[in-house]
Amino acid sequence: MSLHEGVTPAGAHTYQLRVYFEDTDAGGVVYHANYLRFAERARTEALREAGVPHAEMAHQFGLIFMVRRVVMEYLRPARLDDLITVLTETLSVGGATVTLRQSFRSQGFRDAAADLAVMEARLACVRLADGRPARIPDRWRARLTALAGDKTSGSCG
Amino acid sequence: MSLHEGVTPAGAHTYQLRVYFEDTDAGGVVYHANYLRFAERARTEALREAGVPHAEMAHQFGLIFMVRRVVMEYLRPARLDDLITVLTETLSVGGATVTLRQSFRSQGFRDAAADLAVMEARLACVRLADGRPARIPDRWRARLTALAGDKTSGSCG
Amino acid sequence: MSLHEGVTPAGAHTYQLRVYFEDTDAGGVVYHANYLRFAERARTEALREAGVPHAEMAHQFGLIFMVRRVVMEYLRPARLDDLITVLTETLSVGGATVTLRQSFRSQGFRDAAADLAVMEARLACVRLADGRPARIPDRWRARLTALAGDKTSGSCG
Amino acid sequence: MSLHEGVTPAGAHTYQLRVYFEDTDAGGVVYHANYLRFAERARTEALREAGVPHAEMAHQFGLIFMVRRVVMEYLRPARLDDLITVLTETLSVGGATVTLRQSFRSQGFRDAAADLAVMEARLACVRLADGRPARIPDRWRARLTALAGDKTSGSCG
Repeated sequence: MSLHEGVTPAGAHTYQLRVYFEDTDAGGVVYHANYLRFAERARTEALREAGVPHAEMAHQFGLIFMVRRVVMEYLRPARLDDLITVLTETLSVGGATVTLRQSFRSQGFRDAAADLAVMEARLACVRLADGRPARIPDRWRARLTALAGDKTSGSCG
Repeated sequence: MSLHEGVTPAGAHTYQLRVYFEDTDAGGVVYHANYLRFAERARTEALREAGVPHAEMAHQFGLIFMVRRVVMEYLRPARLDDLITVLTETLSVGGATVTLRQSFRSQGFRDAAADLAVMEARLACVRLADGRPARIPDRWRARLTALAGDKTSGSCG
Repeated sequence: MSLHEGVTPAGAHTYQLRVYFEDTDAGGVVYHANYLRFAERARTEALREAGVPHAEMAHQFGLIFMVRRVVMEYLRPARLDDLITVLTETLSVGGATVTLRQSFRSQGFRDAAADLAVMEARLACVRLADGRPARIPDRWRARLTALAGDKTSGSCG
Repeated sequence: MSLHEGVTPAGAHTYQLRVYFEDTDAGGVVYHANYLRFAERARTEALREAGVPHAEMAHQFGLIFMVRRVVMEYLRPARLDDLITVLTETLSVGGATVTLRQSFRSQGFRDAAADLAVMEARLACVRLADGRPARIPDRWRARLTALAGDKTSGSCG
């Protein structure tokens, strides 16, 4: 296991980050686009933990996940110095796509009622060579499917 | 009228930008989160053109638009040096919210078939003092409603 | 001549930009690292205007300018909605390097006394294939030398 | 001690980070401006560890450190997935300024010969209320002075 992260018992991957000046804007809160940067950091580590590191995808198989669709709901603002936990879990795995849910939670809060934001991201598996859709290899599909948290909370789709 | 922008006959606001190294990633394309930065630039100018500049909102009325929800579809990648036109138009105006559609188009392409990405953003009018929802002033509602393009193209919602 | 820019009589290239929320931080001012992004935008257009577009460098000659050293002095803060003019001029051209000065000025101010920041950037010409230093082609050297403004103001080096 | 960091025996503060897609550009390497973002993350944690957290500075004393001058030398490129260690140490403390050296090192390399980049940053202590220079409180001066590493390696000033 690598930096500041872990897998919760329920299956969702967790990643923790601190809010720095670079992340904020003149409104005094985290700039809305930066949640997508946070999500990418967390997703990269979640996929690495799940056994699907993008270096392996790229170098061995010539495949990469590209973001095709994002739905983001902003619920309450985060501020300088806040510690944020990003939970990443798989919602569904298709032939060439995987849909993840990522939620952003202030440290010290344990339930979805305190979420700062919640996001769904659909990733497409594509060939590096030409960007064409590619089937997700079977052993990755199994690993992605295992990256599943408590599905009882609502979707933002 | 200010920098590199204009209102098309059909009503949608247009804003043009160039892709620089800062906008790209190691995949050779525009990093997905940066479309939200592009969208904010275009939206700021669109609202200014429409007569709803955020400086006036903030200083005279103590109001600000905050992003509450974003739906973004990524259709084809943009690359270094590309010129991108962002079209911004109002989809609907509610009591305290406005929903905009923003589409990203490569220069030289005139129809939605060539869109790089399309986004819907729901903005909430809130009070700067406490972040609580506030009714959009009537004269702004009229101006926002006028920021309407050709509604025949599909939604990404 | 392309977007929002021009060459002043004295020889320095000018580029204008607006400060958006994406550029600011919770201190209410432009985040210090973002001046380097602004500088890259201006430099890209200055080199394009000077007849040294990086697309030509890369595709025809397999060369690219890489930033080797930056000295940045921050003099006074810029804020949301400010219009900033970036002046770019060549300080010196060596065999494989060029040193530029870039200054950031609030719109409406005409002399260096009102500069927001001033920067010197040394760029190295390197081969795309292996990153090794390469001699700047002669015709580019002449064009870079011509990108020279009023040299009477002081250096920040 | 907080996230992914520590103080080395020699006195320099260390901070580790991973390079994600957000940090790279179309050249396949870390975008040069992003080293300043990395530096701010590391500096924030170094100052917190040293007993000078900016929240305390701001809320209790109405003071903030602002970046006044940066000198950055880029030595070799960093790439996607790299782990980078940022070393932060105090070079000098004046009445109202502190000068730090920050170096960026690939994981697994133990000496300055492998540095990716090295930076000096001069920070000014200013009053939040009006931005005017302010004397650094004595107890902070002592803590900043203690944040000192091995001074035998060269300066980039």
